[in-house]
Amino acid sequence: MHDHTLTIEAARAAIDEKTKPLGALGQLEEIAVRLALLQNTLTPRADRARVCVFAGDHGVTDEGVSAYPRVVTREMMRNFERGGAAINVISASLGVDVRVYDVGVDSDDVAAESVRVCRGTRNIVDEPAMTADQVDAALEVGANAARDAAAAGIQVLGLGEMGIGNTTIAAAVLSALSGQPATGTVGLGTGIDAAALERKRAVVECALAVHGDALGDGREVLRRLGGLELAAIAGAAREAARLGLAVVADGFISTVSVLAALHIASREGEDRARELTRALFFAHRSAERGHALALAACAAFPGCDATPLLDLGLRLGEGSGAALAAPVLRAAAAVMRDMATFASASVSTAEQSPAAQPA
Amino acid sequence: MHDHTLTIEAARAAIDEKTKPLGALGQLEEIAVRLALLQNTLTPRADRARVCVFAGDHGVTDEGVSAYPRVVTREMMRNFERGGAAINVISASLGVDVRVYDVGVDSDDVAAESVRVCRGTRNIVDEPAMTADQVDAALEVGANAARDAAAAGIQVLGLGEMGIGNTTIAAAVLSALSGQPATGTVGLGTGIDAAALERKRAVVECALAVHGDALGDGREVLRRLGGLELAAIAGAAREAARLGLAVVADGFISTVSVLAALHIASREGEDRARELTRALFFAHRSAERGHALALAACAAFPGCDATPLLDLGLRLGEGSGAALAAPVLRAAAAVMRDMATFASASVSTAEQSPAAQPA
Repeated sequence: MHDHTLTIEAARAAIDEKTKPLGALGQLEEIAVRLALLQNTLTPRADRARVCVFAGDHGVTDEGVSAYPRVVTREMMRNFERGGAAINVISASLGVDVRVYDVGVDSDDVAAESVRVCRGTRNIVDEPAMTADQVDAALEVGANAARDAAAAGIQVLGLGEMGIGNTTIAAAVLSALSGQPATGTVGLGTGIDAAALERKRAVVECALAVHGDALGDGREVLRRLGGLELAAIAGAAREAARLGLAVVADGFISTVSVLAALHIASREGEDRARELTRALFFAHRSAERGHALALAACAAFPGCDATPLLDLGLRLGEGSGAALAAPVLRAAAAVMRDMATFASASVSTAEQSPAAQPA
Repeated sequence: MHDHTLTIEAARAAIDEKTKPLGALGQLEEIAVRLALLQNTLTPRADRARVCVFAGDHGVTDEGVSAYPRVVTREMMRNFERGGAAINVISASLGVDVRVYDVGVDSDDVAAESVRVCRGTRNIVDEPAMTADQVDAALEVGANAARDAAAAGIQVLGLGEMGIGNTTIAAAVLSALSGQPATGTVGLGTGIDAAALERKRAVVECALAVHGDALGDGREVLRRLGGLELAAIAGAAREAARLGLAVVADGFISTVSVLAALHIASREGEDRARELTRALFFAHRSAERGHALALAACAAFPGCDATPLLDLGLRLGEGSGAALAAPVLRAAAAVMRDMATFASASVSTAEQSPAAQPA
């Protein structure tokens, strides 16, 4: 899609000429270089950020895996509409746009411009979560959201979700994609008690046993074990990357969805995988148990820098971490775009050759 | 100065009623509670942030402790004026105000509204950096900057600095206040080579030996070993805290200056120390060697939460980390102020009692 004539060497050289000691802006410099390469310009912009919140319900909530009743998904949809949720107020305070997509909420209310695929998935301990048509439709909801963002001039696309039961679903997908058992991927989610945690682990183990032999590529893992909002995030990540947007994964569920997207892209070829990894940023280190494993699984893809931008102990979802990370990208772009150079500002350069810096 | 009728229990209860699982916003919730207590309201604001950059030169640069020549301090002053430095472009991208104060730059240029105390300090290996009048004047420059910010409606005051040689000075002050040797407090600064690092350590050890017996309280440590910009930061932190502003320490030098302010306040009484600790936030974990020790020394004061907000490997100074942290405080205030409650949004609450959450 995009020409990439700017080399990493040229982008690094540009940062090194700015009026600051070599490397003194740490991770911000790496982000600045990545944004420059992604936009193929030494004057990148990351002012216009949007968080897409994809929402869906899950058949697996029949198993008692969440601290909250299933109805909370649709109740939170109204909260999003009225601007009262965390993602609304955090984004508003930071100049970040928010769009909420009902990909599969179990509710009688259907918005006029609904993109809902169905009223939630089926229970993964019994059968596949989705049909092939449903997973494709959910991937397409995400892709359309990415196209809309690009058309609106958005440069940074955060990917969030809402769906009671979806830490269970994400744990199952992560176990399937990483080969790790449920003990490593199942966490406390919204805050379950010890008995529910045991139940949640057993549910994931059961689902893995039921579908294990039939699990194939990333798309089939999403179809059998995933959720509509997870598939939408995967679809949005792929299309946004293709369109040259910076893609910001949020927490556990968002990262697992992006991991599925990486698996799908890899199957299609090295170029498609590289297109995605070059666009991916990871907003924060979540407090949810499986997130570190999900980040490590993403980092195993060549060229994927899965170093989180923030570490604030968040475990909410909704894209709240992605919204909080947006200013970091905005500032990094400004450093590359607007800082003076030693030459342009007539500032003297170092007298000594720089020593190796601490990592 | 301020009435504080809002209790921590009431502030925590308000956060717990918001539409999110208990504790799911992690450190952001702690910040929200702290801002509410500081402003004595459940509708705190942190929209208006300013970074003050205090600049000064240092006699110790005669010892060859920096990678950059002394003239860079005044050259960077021009860069700040023209808006080309990192602090300018980062702050502009984030809606953060910047003010630069020449407390002690060695330059023939004097601005009309100059607050310069003198043209830099004396060499600490030979004599005290400042006279008693000079350190008091520098503390007052900072206090005035805090008063100006409060008068302008600023709610969040970041404290940054510029001064070739000031990591050496900050290391000496930190060694004096913490009792730790130069090996633990001296780092690479702007990026010196191995020979210069040895020299820098020896310079700090020499200064500690010269002044050791005469070092008394925080103010005397600043006078003998400190710098004009360090004293200004200490003065600004104290006055801003007294006026109820959130005070954001930046990196190594700023944190050491705040540590000196904590020592000064403690001498004046528990109430003065508590007034300061309740206002203090720490922007980031710097890559400069002594910063972790400086944070730990601050955390040793009762009520001081020295958990850094960001960890981006920054080691620039100028207040760049404080500017980057400003959006985190802005978002935290918005969470406390604007989020709906389970009751107001008609969202169902948890069915299970929450389990203990991971830290």
